[in-house]
Amino acid sequence: MKLATLRVDGGTRAVRLDGDVLVDLGYDDLGALFARADWATVAAEATGKTWPAEGADLAPVVPNPSKVICVGHNYTNHIKEMGRKLPSYPTLFTKFADSLIGPNDPILKPAETEALDWEVELVVVIGKPVRRASEEEAATAIAGFTVMNDVSVRDWQFRTIEWTQGKIWDSSTPVGPYVVTPDEVGGVRPALRVRTVIDDQVMQQDDTGTLLFDPVRLVEYISTVIRLNPGDLIATGTPAGVGHARDPKVYLTGGETVVTTIDGLGACVNRVVEEA
Amino acid sequence: MKLATLRVDGGTRAVRLDGDVLVDLGYDDLGALFARADWATVAAEATGKTWPAEGADLAPVVPNPSKVICVGHNYTNHIKEMGRKLPSYPTLFTKFADSLIGPNDPILKPAETEALDWEVELVVVIGKPVRRASEEEAATAIAGFTVMNDVSVRDWQFRTIEWTQGKIWDSSTPVGPYVVTPDEVGGVRPALRVRTVIDDQVMQQDDTGTLLFDPVRLVEYISTVIRLNPGDLIATGTPAGVGHARDPKVYLTGGETVVTTIDGLGACVNRVVEEA
Repeated sequence: MKLATLRVDGGTRAVRLDGDVLVDLGYDDLGALFARADWATVAAEATGKTWPAEGADLAPVVPNPSKVICVGHNYTNHIKEMGRKLPSYPTLFTKFADSLIGPNDPILKPAETEALDWEVELVVVIGKPVRRASEEEAATAIAGFTVMNDVSVRDWQFRTIEWTQGKIWDSSTPVGPYVVTPDEVGGVRPALRVRTVIDDQVMQQDDTGTLLFDPVRLVEYISTVIRLNPGDLIATGTPAGVGHARDPKVYLTGGETVVTTIDGLGACVNRVVEEA
Repeated sequence: MKLATLRVDGGTRAVRLDGDVLVDLGYDDLGALFARADWATVAAEATGKTWPAEGADLAPVVPNPSKVICVGHNYTNHIKEMGRKLPSYPTLFTKFADSLIGPNDPILKPAETEALDWEVELVVVIGKPVRRASEEEAATAIAGFTVMNDVSVRDWQFRTIEWTQGKIWDSSTPVGPYVVTPDEVGGVRPALRVRTVIDDQVMQQDDTGTLLFDPVRLVEYISTVIRLNPGDLIATGTPAGVGHARDPKVYLTGGETVVTTIDGLGACVNRVVEEA
């Protein structure tokens, strides 16, 4: 199944993609749906109101997750481009719900930065509560996968030794368009082509099968530290090709269109708009 | 005013401390109260049901904030003990709502660590929405102050270059007991004695007036990056005397009682309990 959160009538609705229509699932958003233990059955069987999928105004797949946890240094090629050794543990940082935008919303370039960068990422969406998950529990806790562009404000990210202030900018981070269940992408450790294309130029390209810490391992590891709730998002890290690691460095500017895409999951397509 | 969130009848209630009683304010918790633009008037005038303050079971002052943002390296003495230079910018990291516990709840020592540490902190509680706040807007956005023990799992904190995984442990972080409004502590840049006492031994002691980045400056800085919502918490950093910086290092063990206290605000008093 492909599930999304649709903006409609001044609110949002959880929907399922059926061919070229979106079918109402009876909940305000996917976070509310995933809170049901039987969400997969509810989502599969719902026969509500429909809207055309084309031109739909999609929200972040989960608009208000209790956690957005991101992983750094997880593709071998990106670790090498940043000049680092292969790590023994995943590097974790966080974003806030207020950092998220829909998969087609504009990326606002804050006036306070000249170093706005892209990072395409495979996102794990949690489908049931887990703490200290075993490998099997971790696998069954994965509702599905989606795409994030972990937009990063590099000059602020590297002001101090902690990345947070470059990673949490308000309304900076596209996530979507769909949560795609594992059965549609070959299971809970999918091997999918992941790409960033800016104005038709390929900037990042890799395979999610090359992650050092795969989705199941990340759920095991993170849930050792803190409970994961339905709707929580884990962004699994970005491959080589970010602007900050290029020579010369390249950053986003107003008017560009950034497409972050993962085969089988769809794409975030976002125009960069300079904030006044 | 001194405001708190009381656990009662299987739920919680926002309350005001009046002498030796807690007065119901008509909201489920302080987060819901602060969402009202006129919360200060509502809180001052409420005349609801009362409960005895002594022995009250207090929740985290705001049980489900949209953001918990923490500051590192903010007391001159602590920066020096960690061997660092005075920074130009505040170092920011985050916690989750699921990391918070009440001011008298047990601190669970996870089986996965042998390096559980304390950090007393002055916490700014946000009372109205702000983004890119001016100095004046920042000052008026501060609802009040409370105490946090930013309990840290040092062995996990230093596994990678990002501190997050040592800072977000589930149910690790006492916060409370009260949100005390600025008028009761000399304004929005209070100079108050801050201390950690473990089993009657003073481990940290300093003055919140010596913060490099004061509460108003932190609200200005952080709100440049992301909106702050009513109920959001900013932990302003810890003074010298943490266990990890001692020679030899000292960590928390089961059975100890940790008292983190700030004059005028009250104390978190937490017994350390080893998780099975």
